Amino acid sequence: MIRFESDYLEGAHPLIIKKLEETNFIQTAGYGTDPFCDSAKERIKSQCGNADVKVHFLVGGTQTNLTVISSILRPYQGVLAAATGHVNVHETGAIEACGHKVLALPSEDGKITAAQVRQAYEAHWSDGSHEHIVQPGMVYISQPTENGTLYGKEELKAMYDTCKELGLPLFLDGARLGYGLMAGPNTLTLKDIAELTDVFYIGGTKVGALFGEAVVICNPLLKKDFRYLIKQKGGMLAKGRLLGIQFDTLFEDGLYYEISKHADELAMKLQEAFVRKGYGLRYDSYTNQQFPILPDAHVEKLKEKYSFEFWEKTDDSHSAVRFCTSWATEESAVEALIQDIEAL
Amino acid sequence: MIRFESDYLEGAHPLIIKKLEETNFIQTAGYGTDPFCDSAKERIKSQCGNADVKVHFLVGGTQTNLTVISSILRPYQGVLAAATGHVNVHETGAIEACGHKVLALPSEDGKITAAQVRQAYEAHWSDGSHEHIVQPGMVYISQPTENGTLYGKEELKAMYDTCKELGLPLFLDGARLGYGLMAGPNTLTLKDIAELTDVFYIGGTKVGALFGEAVVICNPLLKKDFRYLIKQKGGMLAKGRLLGIQFDTLFEDGLYYEISKHADELAMKLQEAFVRKGYGLRYDSYTNQQFPILPDAHVEKLKEKYSFEFWEKTDDSHSAVRFCTSWATEESAVEALIQDIEAL
Amino acid sequence: MIRFESDYLEGAHPLIIKKLEETNFIQTAGYGTDPFCDSAKERIKSQCGNADVKVHFLVGGTQTNLTVISSILRPYQGVLAAATGHVNVHETGAIEACGHKVLALPSEDGKITAAQVRQAYEAHWSDGSHEHIVQPGMVYISQPTENGTLYGKEELKAMYDTCKELGLPLFLDGARLGYGLMAGPNTLTLKDIAELTDVFYIGGTKVGALFGEAVVICNPLLKKDFRYLIKQKGGMLAKGRLLGIQFDTLFEDGLYYEISKHADELAMKLQEAFVRKGYGLRYDSYTNQQFPILPDAHVEKLKEKYSFEFWEKTDDSHSAVRFCTSWATEESAVEALIQDIEAL
Amino acid sequence: MIRFESDYLEGAHPLIIKKLEETNFIQTAGYGTDPFCDSAKERIKSQCGNADVKVHFLVGGTQTNLTVISSILRPYQGVLAAATGHVNVHETGAIEACGHKVLALPSEDGKITAAQVRQAYEAHWSDGSHEHIVQPGMVYISQPTENGTLYGKEELKAMYDTCKELGLPLFLDGARLGYGLMAGPNTLTLKDIAELTDVFYIGGTKVGALFGEAVVICNPLLKKDFRYLIKQKGGMLAKGRLLGIQFDTLFEDGLYYEISKHADELAMKLQEAFVRKGYGLRYDSYTNQQFPILPDAHVEKLKEKYSFEFWEKTDDSHSAVRFCTSWATEESAVEALIQDIEAL
Repeated sequence: MIRFESDYLEGAHPLIIKKLEETNFIQTAGYGTDPFCDSAKERIKSQCGNADVKVHFLVGGTQTNLTVISSILRPYQGVLAAATGHVNVHETGAIEACGHKVLALPSEDGKITAAQVRQAYEAHWSDGSHEHIVQPGMVYISQPTENGTLYGKEELKAMYDTCKELGLPLFLDGARLGYGLMAGPNTLTLKDIAELTDVFYIGGTKVGALFGEAVVICNPLLKKDFRYLIKQKGGMLAKGRLLGIQFDTLFEDGLYYEISKHADELAMKLQEAFVRKGYGLRYDSYTNQQFPILPDAHVEKLKEKYSFEFWEKTDDSHSAVRFCTSWATEESAVEALIQDIEAL
Repeated sequence: MIRFESDYLEGAHPLIIKKLEETNFIQTAGYGTDPFCDSAKERIKSQCGNADVKVHFLVGGTQTNLTVISSILRPYQGVLAAATGHVNVHETGAIEACGHKVLALPSEDGKITAAQVRQAYEAHWSDGSHEHIVQPGMVYISQPTENGTLYGKEELKAMYDTCKELGLPLFLDGARLGYGLMAGPNTLTLKDIAELTDVFYIGGTKVGALFGEAVVICNPLLKKDFRYLIKQKGGMLAKGRLLGIQFDTLFEDGLYYEISKHADELAMKLQEAFVRKGYGLRYDSYTNQQFPILPDAHVEKLKEKYSFEFWEKTDDSHSAVRFCTSWATEESAVEALIQDIEAL
Repeated sequence: MIRFESDYLEGAHPLIIKKLEETNFIQTAGYGTDPFCDSAKERIKSQCGNADVKVHFLVGGTQTNLTVISSILRPYQGVLAAATGHVNVHETGAIEACGHKVLALPSEDGKITAAQVRQAYEAHWSDGSHEHIVQPGMVYISQPTENGTLYGKEELKAMYDTCKELGLPLFLDGARLGYGLMAGPNTLTLKDIAELTDVFYIGGTKVGALFGEAVVICNPLLKKDFRYLIKQKGGMLAKGRLLGIQFDTLFEDGLYYEISKHADELAMKLQEAFVRKGYGLRYDSYTNQQFPILPDAHVEKLKEKYSFEFWEKTDDSHSAVRFCTSWATEESAVEALIQDIEAL
Repeated sequence: MIRFESDYLEGAHPLIIKKLEETNFIQTAGYGTDPFCDSAKERIKSQCGNADVKVHFLVGGTQTNLTVISSILRPYQGVLAAATGHVNVHETGAIEACGHKVLALPSEDGKITAAQVRQAYEAHWSDGSHEHIVQPGMVYISQPTENGTLYGKEELKAMYDTCKELGLPLFLDGARLGYGLMAGPNTLTLKDIAELTDVFYIGGTKVGALFGEAVVICNPLLKKDFRYLIKQKGGMLAKGRLLGIQFDTLFEDGLYYEISKHADELAMKLQEAFVRKGYGLRYDSYTNQQFPILPDAHVEKLKEKYSFEFWEKTDDSHSAVRFCTSWATEESAVEALIQDIEAL
C-alpha cells in the first residue's frame, strides 16, 4: 500500500533527525528559552524581513489556532472564516471551547474575499440589535486553503487593507505554508505575508518536521503576554528546544523551501496525469493537495494499491478524492500511481 | 555550568532517538492509530496487568491534566487537589480556563489525605446552601508529588476507597511516575496504581522521552469519547506515531524502570552528601528531586558552577533549593557536585 | 406612536401586579424555595399532566437557553438548531461562551425536520474523522419559531422519536409558547409537549409576566443538580418568590391561555387586513407575530404612526416587516392600524 | 416565625410597587433603552458627581460579578479577592466558569489591604516562571464585606492608588452598598467611591428593590461594548424598564439612603442588645448584618421563634450566627427579638 492520504505520513526530514541526535545531550533551559529557539527565531525574522516580529513555537495546528484566536478576541467576539475553514469544521469545536463563535462565510474553494469581510462587518454594525449578535472580531484565512487554493498578493493586500480599516486583526493559518510559497502561480513571499497579516504561522508538522508550528506576530498590539496563553492552553513544550532545533534546521539553508518545492512538483505531475486521463479537478490547486474527480469504479480500483481520501460525491457515479504529496513523497511512488491511472 | 534545575534538560534516551531514526520513513496513519501506538498500548496494559484499561498518548503534562479533568467534571464541579498541586499553581489557570475551580486543600508536603477529601465532601453537602458552592467532583493527586514525596500503598488504597464511596473519580498525575516507582521506600507498582485510581498518567517528558504522557483510563465510565476531548483541547498529535514509538521503546525491555532507578540512585547520593554536610531537608524525598536547606552563602557559591532552583526562604540566612537528577544525569556530574558540597 | 415592534413593550398583566402588591410583605425563604414557587410548580405539573417533571424558574430566555444547554452537553458536543434559531443568531454567542458550537441546519421558516436531524447525526458518525468534528449532542427547536411558525403534533412526535432513537435530548424553547398553544391550527397541548420533549420552557416574559421562564425537565436523566448550574450561570433570583407569584397567577385560572388567545386573535385580524390589501406573507404564521411583505413606500407611511420591525428586503421595492401583538395589545390599536392599512 | 436570615425576605419598597403599577401600560422599547432607565442613570450619575460614568442595570449579584469580571480580564488573568469574598465561595464557580481563577488572599474580616495586593502582584512578577502562573489582572472587594465590615476612605484610597500604580482595575461589589453608606462610622460617599474605583455596583436586590444591581463604570477604558457582555451572559432583561423604574424610585428623593439607614439603626439596636447580654461579636459590623457569638443553648432557644443563619462554631459550646435587618424590617420585630434575648 502506497499512501497519499495526508501530508503527515512519515517522521521528519533526515537532517532534522540528525540534528536531534547531535544535540541530544546538550543541556538547555526549558520552555523555548534555549539557544536553538533563539537561533530559529532569528532565521525566521530574517526570512520575514522584519526584526520586530515576535516568533513563538507551538506543537500542532489546532493548538496554535485556538491559542492565537483566544489571544485576540474579546469574549463577545467571533472569528470570521470560510465555512470550510479548518477552525470551523475540523477542530472539534476548539474555538467554541474557548468561548468564541466561528462566523462562517460561504466559500466555494476555501477562500473568502475582502468584500465578504466588509459585508459581514457592515451587516453586524448596521443591525439595530447588534449587541444581541456576536461581534466580528478578527479574520481567519488559510494559505494554502484546505482546498489547495491560494490567495494572490493583490487579494491578500485587499484583505489586509480591509481588515486594518475595520479594526479586525488578520490571522493566516499556514499549516501548509511551504507548499503555498513554492507553488507555481504563487505571488507571495514570507516577507509579504509578514507585511500583510497581523499574525500567521509557518507549518512544520506537514512540511518536514516531526511536529511544530512557528507563530509570527507582526502586529505589536498582539504580542503582549502571549506566552501565558501558550502555557494555559497546554501548548508550551517543556523541551522547547525540540521546536527550535527543527525550525533552525528547516530555515538554515532554505530546506523548508526546497522540500516544499519537491512536493509541489510531484503534485503537479499527478495533476497532469489526472487531466490527461480526462478527469475534472474539484479545485484549482497548484499545491501539494490534488482533488481529481474520478469515476467511482476507478476510485475502487486505485484503492487496491493506494490510500487517499474520499472528499465528496460529485454525482451519482463520480467522487472527488484527495491525493497529498509531501516533502517525503518519493518520485517512484508518484510514477507508479501515474502508470496505474493511465492504465485505468 | 552543570545543570540540575529540572528533569527536562536533555533530549531523549538514545534508544528512542535511534528508533525514531529507524522508523522515520515508514508510512503510517495519523492521530495515534498506527501500529507503534498499538504496540505501546499493549505493553502498558500488560505492565498494568489489565487488558481493559484504555491508553491514550498526549504531548505534555498541562495538556494532559486539563484534558483529563475536563473529561470528568460537570460544569459546576471542581477538582480537589493539594494547594501545592501542579494544577493549582503552575498551569496558568488551565483548569479554570476549562471552567472548573481547583478546590485547594492545605498540604505541608504535597500530599493530601483521604480524611481531607472526606471532610471537604461532607462540608459541601452539609452546607445548606451547597448549590451556591462549587461541588467537589473528583480528586487530583501527584505521584511523586511536586515535593518529591510519595503515597504508600495503604495511603493510596484509603484514598481510592474513600473516593469510590463518595463517587469522586481519582486522578493520579504521574509526570515523574518512574522516579516514584523506583524510589527506595516505594510500595506501589503500576498494577497497584491501575487498581487504585480511576485514571492516571505515566510521564514520558521527564523520564526519558522527548515528550509524551500516557493516560491510562481504568474506570470504564470515563473511557467514552475521550479522543474528542484530546482533539478539541489541541492535544492530538498529527504524527501520533512519535508517541507510540517512544512509549514502545520505554516499555519494551524495562527501560523506563531502569533509567528511573538511575536518577533515583544519583539523587540519593546527593541527599547523603547534603545530610553529611549537616544540611536539613525541606521534604522527605527519596525520588529524583532533592530539597536541601542551605546557608545562603553556600547557595551563592554553588551557583557559580551549577544551576538549580530556588524553592523558598526558610529563615533569614537559609533557603531551600531544588536539585533534580534525571535519566540523563551523568554520575560524574553528581560526583563533582558532591565534592563541591563537601568543600563548602 | 403605537408600538407593535415586540411582545415585551409593557409591564405585566394587572393580576400579576396586584398579586405582587398583596404578597409584598410576606417573608419567605430565597432562591425559589418559597410556597409561591411550590404552588406554581404544582400548577405547571398539573397542566403537563405529569407529577414527575421537574420545574425551575429562571429570569429570561437567553439565560434559560444557555443554562439548559450547558446542563446537557458534554464539552465536545454541539447543539443542532435551525440556522435561524435564537441560540444561533440572537444571543451574542451565549452558547459558544459556554464552550459549545451551535450546529446550524438550514431552515426556510424557522423549523427543522426529524430527517435533517438524522442526516446530521449520520453524517457525523459516518465520517471517518468524526473525532475531529463537533459531535451532535442535542436538538434545539422553538415553538412557535422565531418566524411564528408551528410544529404540529406529528412533526414533534417524529422529531422526538428520532431524538430518542439517536440519543439526542430534545429541548423546546417556548419563549412564546402561549401564543403557539392558542393558535388556530395548533395541535399540541402542554401535556403533549411534556411527553414529546426532554426539556422545554414556558415563556413568561413575552406572555404576561414582568419576566420569567419556567423550565420543565421531563427526562429524569437531566434533572440532577440543575440548580447548581442555574446559580453558576447567574440565573438564580434571590427573591425567587417573584417568579413563583407570577407563574402561580398565570396558571391559576387559565390566565396564560386566555391572554395568549387574545394576542393571537388580534394578530389574525391584522393578517386578514394585510391579505385583503393584497400583501404577501413572508411566513405562514398563525401566532402573535405577523410578517407581511409591504411596498417600501407603505412601510415608510406606516412608520409615521406605528413602530414595527424591519425583517428583510424581499425585492428592490418591497420589505418583509414584523408586527407583534401580545397579551397587552389593545383592540383599538389594532383597529387603528387596520384602518391605516386599508387607507394606504 | 420572624425571619432575620437574610436581607431579601420581602418584595420591594411600596413606592416601587406603586411605580410599577402606575407605569404598567406605558409602552417602551426593550433592553434598557427606555426613558425610565435614562432617568435612573441620570440620577445615579448625579449622586456619583460625575456625568461621564457609564451606568448599566443587571438583575442580580452573581450575574453582575461574572459579567464585570469577564469584561476586564484577559484569558490568563485572575481576580485578587478575599478568600471569604462572594466570588470565591458563594457563586458556584461562576468566575471560573468564565475561565478565570479567583486568586484568594487571606482575610480575617472580609477585607483585604493594599499591601496584600502589592505583595501578590510582586510575588507574581518576581517569580521566574510567572508565565506558568495565573497573572493578577484586577482586584475585587465588597463594601460592606460579607462580614459586615467597612473600608474607610483612607483604606479605599490606598487600595485604589496601589491598583492604579500596578495597572489592576479595582471592582467594588456593593450588593449591600446602601447599608455601608449609612453605617455610623462610614467615611465614604457614592462620589468618593466613583472616584476611588474603576467600576462598582449599587445593590438593589438587598436594598429595597425587587431585584437589580446598578453597575457604574468609572474608568473610560472599561466602558466599551459592555452591553454585548451583559447580553451574552444572560443578564440583559427584555423589559429593562423594570430596572429603570426601580432605581429611578430609589434615587428620586433619597429613598435608597433613607431605607438603608432604617436597617442600620435596627441592626445597631440588636448589636447593643447582644453586647448588653454579654455576647461577643464575631466581626466589627456597623451595618445591617450582625454576627453575635451565642451559647449553643441560646441559639436553640431563639430558633423557636426566629430564623437566622448559622455562621460557624467558635468553640465547643458557642456559635457565631448572623442576623440581618433590611429596609423592610419592622421595629416591632427587632423589639420582640431584643426582649427575647434579654430573657435568655
